[in-house]
Amino acid sequence: MDRYRPPLDDIRFSLAHEVPLTRLTAEPALAVADPDTVAGLLEEAGRFAAEVIAPTDRVGDREGARLVDGGVVLPEAFRTAYAQYVASGWGAVQHPEAFGGGGFPLLVATAVKELITTANMAFSLGPLLTTGAVHLLTHHGSEDQRARWLPRMVTGEWTGTMNLTEPQAGSDLGAVTARAEPVGDGSYRVFGQKIYITYGDHDLAEQVVHLVLARLPDAPPGTKGISLFIVPKRMVGPDGAPGEANDVRVVSIEHKLGIHASPTCVMAYGEGGDGAWAELVGDPHDGMRQMFTMMNDARLGVGLQGLAVAERAVQRAEAYARERTQGRAVGTPPGTQSPIVAHPDVRRTLLEARAQIDAMRALCYANAHALDLAQHAGDADERARQQALADLLTPLSKAWCTDLGVELTSEALQVFGGMGYVEETGVAQQFRDARIAPIYEGTNGIQAIDLVGRKLPMEDGGLVARVLDGLLAELDGAPDAVAELVPPVVAAADLARDLAAELLAMRDDPRDALAGATPYLRVLATVIATALVVRGLVAAERARAAGEAVDAGLLAARTARARVLVRRVLPRVHGLAAAVRAGAADLYAEGTPAA
Amino acid sequence: MDRYRPPLDDIRFSLAHEVPLTRLTAEPALAVADPDTVAGLLEEAGRFAAEVIAPTDRVGDREGARLVDGGVVLPEAFRTAYAQYVASGWGAVQHPEAFGGGGFPLLVATAVKELITTANMAFSLGPLLTTGAVHLLTHHGSEDQRARWLPRMVTGEWTGTMNLTEPQAGSDLGAVTARAEPVGDGSYRVFGQKIYITYGDHDLAEQVVHLVLARLPDAPPGTKGISLFIVPKRMVGPDGAPGEANDVRVVSIEHKLGIHASPTCVMAYGEGGDGAWAELVGDPHDGMRQMFTMMNDARLGVGLQGLAVAERAVQRAEAYARERTQGRAVGTPPGTQSPIVAHPDVRRTLLEARAQIDAMRALCYANAHALDLAQHAGDADERARQQALADLLTPLSKAWCTDLGVELTSEALQVFGGMGYVEETGVAQQFRDARIAPIYEGTNGIQAIDLVGRKLPMEDGGLVARVLDGLLAELDGAPDAVAELVPPVVAAADLARDLAAELLAMRDDPRDALAGATPYLRVLATVIATALVVRGLVAAERARAAGEAVDAGLLAARTARARVLVRRVLPRVHGLAAAVRAGAADLYAEGTPAA
Repeated sequence: MDRYRPPLDDIRFSLAHEVPLTRLTAEPALAVADPDTVAGLLEEAGRFAAEVIAPTDRVGDREGARLVDGGVVLPEAFRTAYAQYVASGWGAVQHPEAFGGGGFPLLVATAVKELITTANMAFSLGPLLTTGAVHLLTHHGSEDQRARWLPRMVTGEWTGTMNLTEPQAGSDLGAVTARAEPVGDGSYRVFGQKIYITYGDHDLAEQVVHLVLARLPDAPPGTKGISLFIVPKRMVGPDGAPGEANDVRVVSIEHKLGIHASPTCVMAYGEGGDGAWAELVGDPHDGMRQMFTMMNDARLGVGLQGLAVAERAVQRAEAYARERTQGRAVGTPPGTQSPIVAHPDVRRTLLEARAQIDAMRALCYANAHALDLAQHAGDADERARQQALADLLTPLSKAWCTDLGVELTSEALQVFGGMGYVEETGVAQQFRDARIAPIYEGTNGIQAIDLVGRKLPMEDGGLVARVLDGLLAELDGAPDAVAELVPPVVAAADLARDLAAELLAMRDDPRDALAGATPYLRVLATVIATALVVRGLVAAERARAAGEAVDAGLLAARTARARVLVRRVLPRVHGLAAAVRAGAADLYAEGTPAA
Repeated sequence: MDRYRPPLDDIRFSLAHEVPLTRLTAEPALAVADPDTVAGLLEEAGRFAAEVIAPTDRVGDREGARLVDGGVVLPEAFRTAYAQYVASGWGAVQHPEAFGGGGFPLLVATAVKELITTANMAFSLGPLLTTGAVHLLTHHGSEDQRARWLPRMVTGEWTGTMNLTEPQAGSDLGAVTARAEPVGDGSYRVFGQKIYITYGDHDLAEQVVHLVLARLPDAPPGTKGISLFIVPKRMVGPDGAPGEANDVRVVSIEHKLGIHASPTCVMAYGEGGDGAWAELVGDPHDGMRQMFTMMNDARLGVGLQGLAVAERAVQRAEAYARERTQGRAVGTPPGTQSPIVAHPDVRRTLLEARAQIDAMRALCYANAHALDLAQHAGDADERARQQALADLLTPLSKAWCTDLGVELTSEALQVFGGMGYVEETGVAQQFRDARIAPIYEGTNGIQAIDLVGRKLPMEDGGLVARVLDGLLAELDGAPDAVAELVPPVVAAADLARDLAAELLAMRDDPRDALAGATPYLRVLATVIATALVVRGLVAAERARAAGEAVDAGLLAARTARARVLVRRVLPRVHGLAAAVRAGAADLYAEGTPAA
């Protein structure tokens, strides 16, 4: 039951009907991603994830990362798998061809990342952070910096990190105190400690390129005084090869609930006294803005983790439910035992989970799709519209998918009964691994605040209505096979639109809208993701009617799951409306905790 | 922030107003529990839990149970604490005075258990299983058996276990294959293997009294052919002292997600060839019925774990949220950082959690209260009514409180941000510990099936309506201070009553009602628990109006939390109605998993 099956059918269905890849390849810059090429690429990625990466998942959890003689040691299996990952070019898929990348759309890279993450989340984090660093240097590094750093980061020969957090500066990066001093030769020296640095050190690659937020001597306070620096683990000689050590030390690694094989490091810069050698990226004091340009990508990447870990856990549960016999299902002869998947409550659990996984994938892929068009659409207005859509979808992908990641891994564990609680079974690892994703890359509370505080006001407060109306328009005249799914989506969308307007109208106390932010995020994400799923079915039915080849068995399965989504899961949003509207007064009333 | 504070104020409030202890002490058999005695007992239990038990929680998680030379070894701190537990008489509180017990109502014992469990769930499981065994032998053992076994089990000098599960017999105990043979001297020999045996072996006590389900040679198949046996770890000599070993062996212990210090054993009986010495309890083939008599108590005990672990985790989160500064709250001067408890979304998290903990406590205590009156009320009709109430509340306490235990420990962990994911912080342990409770003692799916299949049909299908109407009647004419809380409770109760009738009316396919069982359990538990909370406030306001001493600060705090419960949490039930009503057709449609 431990065998990982890459969900290629579902991914292909999404790219064909829910978030059409062909819309992207219509743009010249993305023409490389023609459907046949992508189909082959995904097939190969699925095979690689299943055969090379998935077998490292359990051993990574058991052995974990270890700090030995000042350096982080990962399990032997990770070193072997990572070498193959680099050699096969998986890290390069989404990066610009100019630096050795594949030039594929983010949408395609997202599907590849999903496969790798489903196989082993702890493994996937090194590449995720490297991708973020490449993205940042691509946009903000000088030509010289890009030439020196990017080619080996694009391949994954060198890995990257993001050094933001300090003990007193977590959600509030304005409190960062790490400092950087210019030394007159164009380089800088960085001093300070950073915490929660994912893959801050490891033995998979010869070089780690740290991107570090720090303050220059003349920096204004708060977020406007933070600059971004490249600080390599090892100095790079004139030949481009990493040589002597920079003044960068791993102080300790965290003993965590999950993702044991992903080293979470406390990093010390410049402890030796003279500071860690560093290069400034872009302009002074511009670090926060630079970070923001990669935030959508990074947050989507974390949202994808919720999807991926849930997919893995639910696969395990589905396999177990087919094998395990217990009790007698309705309609079977006395004296027999049935596979538990035959019992209604187990089926309900599995189908609600699977239906929500479909919805998570639709949302994450739509988010990537929008980011691709925001960058590459030929029309400037279209780019702006797609950027706004991506800005709206990003906090939803991050928070909703990671909350569901925790919930669905828990449901999957439950299907196993007592065996689910035994670590050897494996599903408990997914439950533990999933729990980090609602926390890092901006806690889900921060995502909700971002949604209500920054995204709802966009387009004069009309963004949510525009996006929902656009989705509903595509459901107009839905084919008979799925027509019954449309009215509940319309009703839920009406609620989501109304609630957005009500939150924007809360003016008495700025805390009122914030008190409704988390339940509202859940409402809006559920509605949009469900609408995307139904849109996909409408498109698939129309394609079938037009004579295109559509896998009938898959379409039936997707339709059955969509019915579960629409009839059993979606209606929960109506129960959340009261909390969205409740305001903050109760939370600050007499008898509530003193600050 | 790691300091455990026994929630005595809340417990006292519940016993005074929500589930009045004085209603119990009005019965002569329960007069021992006069409020002053109980107040002193709880004060002392709180001190014991905080000072003696709570310090063993983290070390128990880190060291865990170990199998050494065929016996289970627990952390040294557990042996010391358990000796004090026995010496102080905490295990005896609820047991009959005839066997050395305190003769207190289950309600009072439940409060004591809550305190011990909140301090250390893994520790509490030994006493929980022992209590179940005592309960069972009290009701079904012969006079001779009770005299020989009970006195030292009541004190906790000897511990007890329940041996039900086998690899092929989990939720379906009819599949049990362990066998027992009479040897002619009145004793039996037991053969077979049992799994998931909590505290199946340990070094806290000199004797372990196993209660084992097995089949006699002439047993009919299924649940009607299962008998119950006493199988001691060590043979008891004529002097009553444990002597040589019985043929009982610990095969292995499980490596689990949580409750590391609670040994979960695979037990082998009669491997040596001649069988493990055993005594039959009660009549042959009567084991399942005997087990059922203690099931309400045991399931309530597990529900209480959800409450207790959530209480501990939320205490940690509340303390952290007051200490940790990050970001600037609305209305505070620029440049300052505020404690995170000042931010609306953090307050929402903490208050929703705390409000649900209040509701869980009200439900568990009401369940115990009903079990006490079912046994001890002077009037036979009253006893029958209270037994029916307890039968209804038990699956709710078990499933709802343990689901919330997982959800609220997760919310508490989230409040810590990155620190929550680091094991040293401690809250991750509660998240892991909590996850077993929805599984054992009947999975929560089994509880939902019990509710819909067995409990809804009681009293000609009128039980739910009677219970709800009774609760609503007590809210009639609520004092002004809480009057606004009543209409939402009435609306939710109307829904719960309607849904019960609809589930009972589903006759086309027996799977339809089962497909709605889990969401319906959530609806009904939320409604009843909320009604109990509001009833408590009504009673407290009336007591205050009548001039009784009521802590004004506490009442304000409870009222604030009840507003959060009623306005933000309770309305979610309306979003679950669709899933209750959806039936099973979608779950078995074309495209859903083949059995």
